Amino acid sequence: MAKLRLFLDDIDPDADTIVVTGEEAEHARKVKRVGPGHAVTILDGRGGVIEAEVVNIRRELELRIIERRVEAPVSPRLEVYAAAPKGPRLDDMIDALSQVGAASWSPLETKLSVVDPRPGKLARQERIAREASKQCGRAWVMTIGARQRLEAVLEGTGPETAVVMADVGGERYERTGRGVVRLLIGPEGGWTEGEVALARSKGARVCSFGVHAMRIEVAAAVCAGVVMEREGGAESRGADSR
Amino acid sequence: MAKLRLFLDDIDPDADTIVVTGEEAEHARKVKRVGPGHAVTILDGRGGVIEAEVVNIRRELELRIIERRVEAPVSPRLEVYAAAPKGPRLDDMIDALSQVGAASWSPLETKLSVVDPRPGKLARQERIAREASKQCGRAWVMTIGARQRLEAVLEGTGPETAVVMADVGGERYERTGRGVVRLLIGPEGGWTEGEVALARSKGARVCSFGVHAMRIEVAAAVCAGVVMEREGGAESRGADSR
Repeated sequence: MAKLRLFLDDIDPDADTIVVTGEEAEHARKVKRVGPGHAVTILDGRGGVIEAEVVNIRRELELRIIERRVEAPVSPRLEVYAAAPKGPRLDDMIDALSQVGAASWSPLETKLSVVDPRPGKLARQERIAREASKQCGRAWVMTIGARQRLEAVLEGTGPETAVVMADVGGERYERTGRGVVRLLIGPEGGWTEGEVALARSKGARVCSFGVHAMRIEVAAAVCAGVVMEREGGAESRGADSR
Repeated sequence: MAKLRLFLDDIDPDADTIVVTGEEAEHARKVKRVGPGHAVTILDGRGGVIEAEVVNIRRELELRIIERRVEAPVSPRLEVYAAAPKGPRLDDMIDALSQVGAASWSPLETKLSVVDPRPGKLARQERIAREASKQCGRAWVMTIGARQRLEAVLEGTGPETAVVMADVGGERYERTGRGVVRLLIGPEGGWTEGEVALARSKGARVCSFGVHAMRIEVAAAVCAGVVMEREGGAESRGADSR
């Protein structure tokens, strides 16, 4: 039977038991059909992982804590800056980036961006990122950043950071070996020539991923996947896979 | 102004002009708002590409052919065999795989597969693949294959073909250098131990992609993207990117 995963970020560090109420308890009982003895993993989204088992389930879900541990974030730290696609495609992008293992996503303001996500929409993305953490077993939730201008993202990086701009006219991606990668995904209309030139002048690598044009949300997931694959060592794998 | 792309597979090889009627003409006029002089690319899905321009547009869209060419398929030829996810997620998978550049997708029958797509659903996937070709400018449409059993997919491959099974417990992906890659993506419930052992015994590479568990449709797109990136040479890029 599949493990149940819960996202709870306010667990008493000294507790031996946890009582879950409300929607999560109802979901566990009615949808997941868990019973006494069923294994449950609790994630706090900041590396804290608790393995527990169900003691009792009625209105409330009563859990006994078996083990607590803290997991390191995956390496590299992949910071995605992408123009926001329209409508539900932003939801799909956040969900996919979470599964792929990006550390953060921030909406990127570019010359040809059209969608400026409102605060309510960004709060919704935080909920989607938390849901995705449960689904794919991430110990660290993907954070949703504030809107950034391209110029700001290109500045202020240290020697540990590589900046990679995805562009169909770019070079082949080569492993950077850096601990932090900022991945920039342009809007539907693409980057302007000035933006590509600016990125190059600031030391960013301009890389082509794939053989066809991709929509933003697919490009973000696939480019992020390629970066994680090329940069990640064996030590960063499988720590919390299903 | 963005180029208009049409998918038409029955153009007279000797014609100098093309007249488009029906929905495609209406879409060009009302949504794309094309007018005389506007550039149009016509794809037949089998490598045939026609560059044309609008001569006239009223009820019908009248085009003058400027150039005809035949493009080679992208390399490697990536054949994806994946369990079918439920509902609209199959549509998303086909759309994303088309953008990433897979040559084909076939539903894969495994021990823990739950969805057996009916013929009507497969026909729908062919329409989605054609739409995706227009969107991303593929000269070759991604083909939708018949359902295959895992055993059959592992057999009957020549020396030009590498078989890669995606599994969280696998090794790191290494470039195969083969002209054809069969990529196998398992169902939600994963592969059984017997299936992984069978794949290894038949010479398949079992590879882990990514640091977290991914849902089928995200895994398929990301794994396909990594394979295309690792296997594709510079010569296979950009031939028909936007």
